[in-house]
Amino acid sequence: MRAFASDNYAGVLPEIVSALSKEALSNSHARAYGHDDISHEVRLVIQEIFNSSSDDPSPDVYFVFNGTGANILSILSCTHSYHAVLCADISHIICDESTCPETVAGVRLISIPTDENGKINIDIIEEKLDRIGDMHAAQPRMLTIAQPTEYGTVYTINELKQLSNLAKKYNLYFHIDGARLFNAASSLNCNLRDITTLVGVDILSLGGTKAGLMYGEAVIVFNQSLIQTNGNTISPLKYRHKQVMQLASKQRFIAIQFLTLLKNDLWKKSSEYSNSMAQLLKKRLELISEKTNKQLIRITKPVETNAIFLEIPKDWYEPLSTIFPFYMWRIKNCEVRLMCSFDTTENDIDQFINKINELIQS
Amino acid sequence: MRAFASDNYAGVLPEIVSALSKEALSNSHARAYGHDDISHEVRLVIQEIFNSSSDDPSPDVYFVFNGTGANILSILSCTHSYHAVLCADISHIICDESTCPETVAGVRLISIPTDENGKINIDIIEEKLDRIGDMHAAQPRMLTIAQPTEYGTVYTINELKQLSNLAKKYNLYFHIDGARLFNAASSLNCNLRDITTLVGVDILSLGGTKAGLMYGEAVIVFNQSLIQTNGNTISPLKYRHKQVMQLASKQRFIAIQFLTLLKNDLWKKSSEYSNSMAQLLKKRLELISEKTNKQLIRITKPVETNAIFLEIPKDWYEPLSTIFPFYMWRIKNCEVRLMCSFDTTENDIDQFINKINELIQS
Amino acid sequence: MRAFASDNYAGVLPEIVSALSKEALSNSHARAYGHDDISHEVRLVIQEIFNSSSDDPSPDVYFVFNGTGANILSILSCTHSYHAVLCADISHIICDESTCPETVAGVRLISIPTDENGKINIDIIEEKLDRIGDMHAAQPRMLTIAQPTEYGTVYTINELKQLSNLAKKYNLYFHIDGARLFNAASSLNCNLRDITTLVGVDILSLGGTKAGLMYGEAVIVFNQSLIQTNGNTISPLKYRHKQVMQLASKQRFIAIQFLTLLKNDLWKKSSEYSNSMAQLLKKRLELISEKTNKQLIRITKPVETNAIFLEIPKDWYEPLSTIFPFYMWRIKNCEVRLMCSFDTTENDIDQFINKINELIQS
Amino acid sequence: MRAFASDNYAGVLPEIVSALSKEALSNSHARAYGHDDISHEVRLVIQEIFNSSSDDPSPDVYFVFNGTGANILSILSCTHSYHAVLCADISHIICDESTCPETVAGVRLISIPTDENGKINIDIIEEKLDRIGDMHAAQPRMLTIAQPTEYGTVYTINELKQLSNLAKKYNLYFHIDGARLFNAASSLNCNLRDITTLVGVDILSLGGTKAGLMYGEAVIVFNQSLIQTNGNTISPLKYRHKQVMQLASKQRFIAIQFLTLLKNDLWKKSSEYSNSMAQLLKKRLELISEKTNKQLIRITKPVETNAIFLEIPKDWYEPLSTIFPFYMWRIKNCEVRLMCSFDTTENDIDQFINKINELIQS
Repeated sequence: MRAFASDNYAGVLPEIVSALSKEALSNSHARAYGHDDISHEVRLVIQEIFNSSSDDPSPDVYFVFNGTGANILSILSCTHSYHAVLCADISHIICDESTCPETVAGVRLISIPTDENGKINIDIIEEKLDRIGDMHAAQPRMLTIAQPTEYGTVYTINELKQLSNLAKKYNLYFHIDGARLFNAASSLNCNLRDITTLVGVDILSLGGTKAGLMYGEAVIVFNQSLIQTNGNTISPLKYRHKQVMQLASKQRFIAIQFLTLLKNDLWKKSSEYSNSMAQLLKKRLELISEKTNKQLIRITKPVETNAIFLEIPKDWYEPLSTIFPFYMWRIKNCEVRLMCSFDTTENDIDQFINKINELIQS
Repeated sequence: MRAFASDNYAGVLPEIVSALSKEALSNSHARAYGHDDISHEVRLVIQEIFNSSSDDPSPDVYFVFNGTGANILSILSCTHSYHAVLCADISHIICDESTCPETVAGVRLISIPTDENGKINIDIIEEKLDRIGDMHAAQPRMLTIAQPTEYGTVYTINELKQLSNLAKKYNLYFHIDGARLFNAASSLNCNLRDITTLVGVDILSLGGTKAGLMYGEAVIVFNQSLIQTNGNTISPLKYRHKQVMQLASKQRFIAIQFLTLLKNDLWKKSSEYSNSMAQLLKKRLELISEKTNKQLIRITKPVETNAIFLEIPKDWYEPLSTIFPFYMWRIKNCEVRLMCSFDTTENDIDQFINKINELIQS
Repeated sequence: MRAFASDNYAGVLPEIVSALSKEALSNSHARAYGHDDISHEVRLVIQEIFNSSSDDPSPDVYFVFNGTGANILSILSCTHSYHAVLCADISHIICDESTCPETVAGVRLISIPTDENGKINIDIIEEKLDRIGDMHAAQPRMLTIAQPTEYGTVYTINELKQLSNLAKKYNLYFHIDGARLFNAASSLNCNLRDITTLVGVDILSLGGTKAGLMYGEAVIVFNQSLIQTNGNTISPLKYRHKQVMQLASKQRFIAIQFLTLLKNDLWKKSSEYSNSMAQLLKKRLELISEKTNKQLIRITKPVETNAIFLEIPKDWYEPLSTIFPFYMWRIKNCEVRLMCSFDTTENDIDQFINKINELIQS
Repeated sequence: MRAFASDNYAGVLPEIVSALSKEALSNSHARAYGHDDISHEVRLVIQEIFNSSSDDPSPDVYFVFNGTGANILSILSCTHSYHAVLCADISHIICDESTCPETVAGVRLISIPTDENGKINIDIIEEKLDRIGDMHAAQPRMLTIAQPTEYGTVYTINELKQLSNLAKKYNLYFHIDGARLFNAASSLNCNLRDITTLVGVDILSLGGTKAGLMYGEAVIVFNQSLIQTNGNTISPLKYRHKQVMQLASKQRFIAIQFLTLLKNDLWKKSSEYSNSMAQLLKKRLELISEKTNKQLIRITKPVETNAIFLEIPKDWYEPLSTIFPFYMWRIKNCEVRLMCSFDTTENDIDQFINKINELIQS
């Protein structure tokens, strides 16, 4: 099967498979629960990537199993249960993670309406901040955004700075759900630090699975006040990490995947590729659109990373998605999402476009 | 490094590595979140293994990331938050899973004292059941045991039946934490169904990681009343699965590992091997014990699976565990745990024994 | 001090004070935790009031300390933690009860936009119900409305029936937050059963404190499936009642207050009175409005119970609220809320109007 | 009915009834949610009672509805959800408050075995503290004791200091569940500060209901680090207070009760009286015991406050408890508890003893 459903329908980057196999068959035992050498090594690599200078304090790094795990660990690190977390109304954290934030962290999610590009703007956020200090109301303590957004659009560095400043003004921690952060960085043609540490992000969910890992995400904590609470030298996050079922006993197998992805800019090549496949697919779809005078296909969001949102005729959905599965986004106007991944091929695109042409001609 | 610390210090069974690599590089996309073909196939294999006849209802199978995840999903499936879960005082669930049961499921764990072999007996459990129906007291609703126990000892089929009957008598769900269930089955030389479905187990945490997987465990639900609640045809467990951060997007990579382990009795060969290595190590230690008139080493628990508990001289701990890491169990009497795994070699044992002989002679 | 801030600024109905004192000084001991005779008697009175015939099954009645307690007990009775509760965006449950629903019940609150009269309509609710059965999304399981609404407006019996039917259609429990239910019944000039049992309400938070009690509310459960879960004869709610800190040891003192309020229609006289005071105040304000050509004061919502919402000149807020405290509702347009209670006097209104006239003339 | 079941079977102290009635009928409105003048006044009285000098920082005072509410607010103030609370195996907090600590605060309760007098000793506590810093284990963060204990025995000032020192040594907050603290202070003939602030108690649940209030308890926070967290000037407890359903809208009616109880040493007269009634009852029971050569009645715990534990013949339980209800404590040896209260009369005792004499003679 080949699909445009999600980047988690894809397999695993060959470099990752190779590194995993090598480590798995190495005949060497390793300390469990993150005390292994590879976990140590990758933490240093992460520090180098996200810090600007060697004087910067070390970020705290926790490897987790999946994206929901990463987001919950982030929430628990920033909040008490009487707090609220501000998030976009279309965000994964409020739409696709069940009630995990409420049940595990006890907090409220406050939904912020997004604009047509899936972004939240500062004025609307501020409206939700008028009851700080009032014990009757859930107290906002964290602002989380997805970069890229659920629509695949990318906050500019300037937009990130504005959000970060707003967060600081209101004593909110600023979190990025970076399930596809690599695609955003490639889209902006910038370093990872440019859209995280340098804009004042406090804590980051860094995605691995959608970037081509077999499994594994990371939570990276930059704000030192989250690490060294109340003068304790022991970070409270290590207890949270275990408590939320995200501490792998054989953690080295997540670590080796991140090490492989982050070293030699594999993440960059891979995310540039999936972004470029989306551009190619977009062009091919636009060609059809032009040929048909835009009456059949309409691309609805800017294509800035590896996702394409488009309206298609309702009677295309079943025949198309049967061959190349993809998600319905909004039934009303038959808006669907096509997602490219590291292993999307030109042949996939050719065949998909061919199928559309068949549908047009029939 | 080679270690006797834990079976999660080991790598991955070669057959598993091979199957993972093949699937990862297959160039095929697959439906995410458990809707893939391999997940479907392994569910059928599990049904065949645990059911006695094709008339038995299908068990519900959920793949999870780690043992804590499996146990929490099991607890959430059986309880409301005003319930209590009875467990052994030495069990992993109460000693090594942080406050996950309390925070995520809201329940109380009630600790049941164990005997010298790490087992709980019926009389002591019954003492904890005297306030059923009293709204002021946490209400027992689930009995969980580890098979094998934390000491590596194995409940006999008859003991399991007695516990199961007790659970039924008091309207408790009977759960087995089978993080090392394969070792127990090999020890009893029986089928997996003999110590689960046939003795009346309602729900099972089936371990994979310690049996030689890279990652992954399974929750298997046998009791149909847990699956079809209130006449609903949709099992409530699928929501729990997602809610507790245990639903893998690329679940096929857990499924392929279980498929490989369960097919062709790989689990059996592997667990018999690790059990036999423990017997070998035990014999070699006993030889030393005999030579030294039992003054230096004392094996403290029956060796029934892949764990050996023994007292050693205090000044051995550091030099020995530096070379071959293992865990201190009880500082007071310097009781330590040695754990064999699928990849423990005779050479490992030779070198460990040699080091002990050196320590004796020095 | 005299105030129009809230009906919880008021004291206690004299009949209630008298009954409390008599019981408190009776020299008789009474069983604790709800096993006393008065609790028994008031349950029968409640059954008579809410049931249509003696054939109807008995509702389950739980006395609690405050409104948040009543709402949380209701939520816990209807939901699992993976569920969501639909509520009005202006409702007390989402605006003024901290994160209690999330922290204690684990559920999500889903905010439904309200119309200009503070009511939610069916079409908007249905939009939130499109992911039932999808394990990634919080699952709606309960619809709660406030009767009267936070704006003091009242759902008609027909509107209640429509909401109830919608709830049934989607398998949602229908809950009313009746912190001021008596005012609604008086406004509609109907019996309590007309707006609860007869329209299909499953569970009710019945307010006492704002109706003139010293303290105490009640949760009344009509839907028998909430009471007798899984064929159990013991209602699970009694465990919830205790678990959420709402079981009073000397419960008879809450029971005697409800008994006094419900017997001889004291609730009716009292709520009709507070409603009528609101009408009087409204008329007096309208007179001013007319005299000033509506330029200074504008009543913004229909006055249907004991609350009046109005816009006033910004420079009035401080001098007026210093003498007669009341709440600012929306700073932007200086919309304020005036609340009458059982003990609001004509003299209070005279003095308030006089103060306004002073402000106009100055 | 007259009973020896519990001090919450009793009514309300006449002075309290009088103060409540006066305030309730005062015709004055008052600010809700604790912003009233009486709440302010009683906080000053509490400060005076518990502080040694006017230089001591002000304690933070929160009025709550019941004892479970007080204990949960205390736990939430001291812990994160990955923490554990050490408590006596017989304590109310673990035996009689459902799973409230687990469900609401997420923490684990660790049960500490008690000696024959119901007290916990330091050595046994220390055994539970061997895994501090280990992320796999629930992390002890709070030590709670009941003063007096569930057996009515009283920790000496010296014992309290030892426990407090132990708590400080291990970075645990020291909490007292003082549901009957006044009886303990009267028993020790000391001031309230002698057994709280002066021995290093961090936070206190101060009971009102069992001392003769209609309802109401208080949480008093002495440790300033619990009040001013992270340099915030706003105490996090006010959010917790609301969040756990313990903030009364008409709080002045709890405040006026505490004001009456604490002023003019009403608490002292009242608790000395109930203690003295227990002594009288004890003497009368001992007389019977002597007459019958101790074969029928055996007082099993030291009578230090208002509770008496004794073994009686099994066939006495029904006839005696039917007339004067009291609780069975341990069925095995027919050990029962008799509890005196502020309104126990000599006549009650006479009649109870008469009934026993009847039973002996029959």
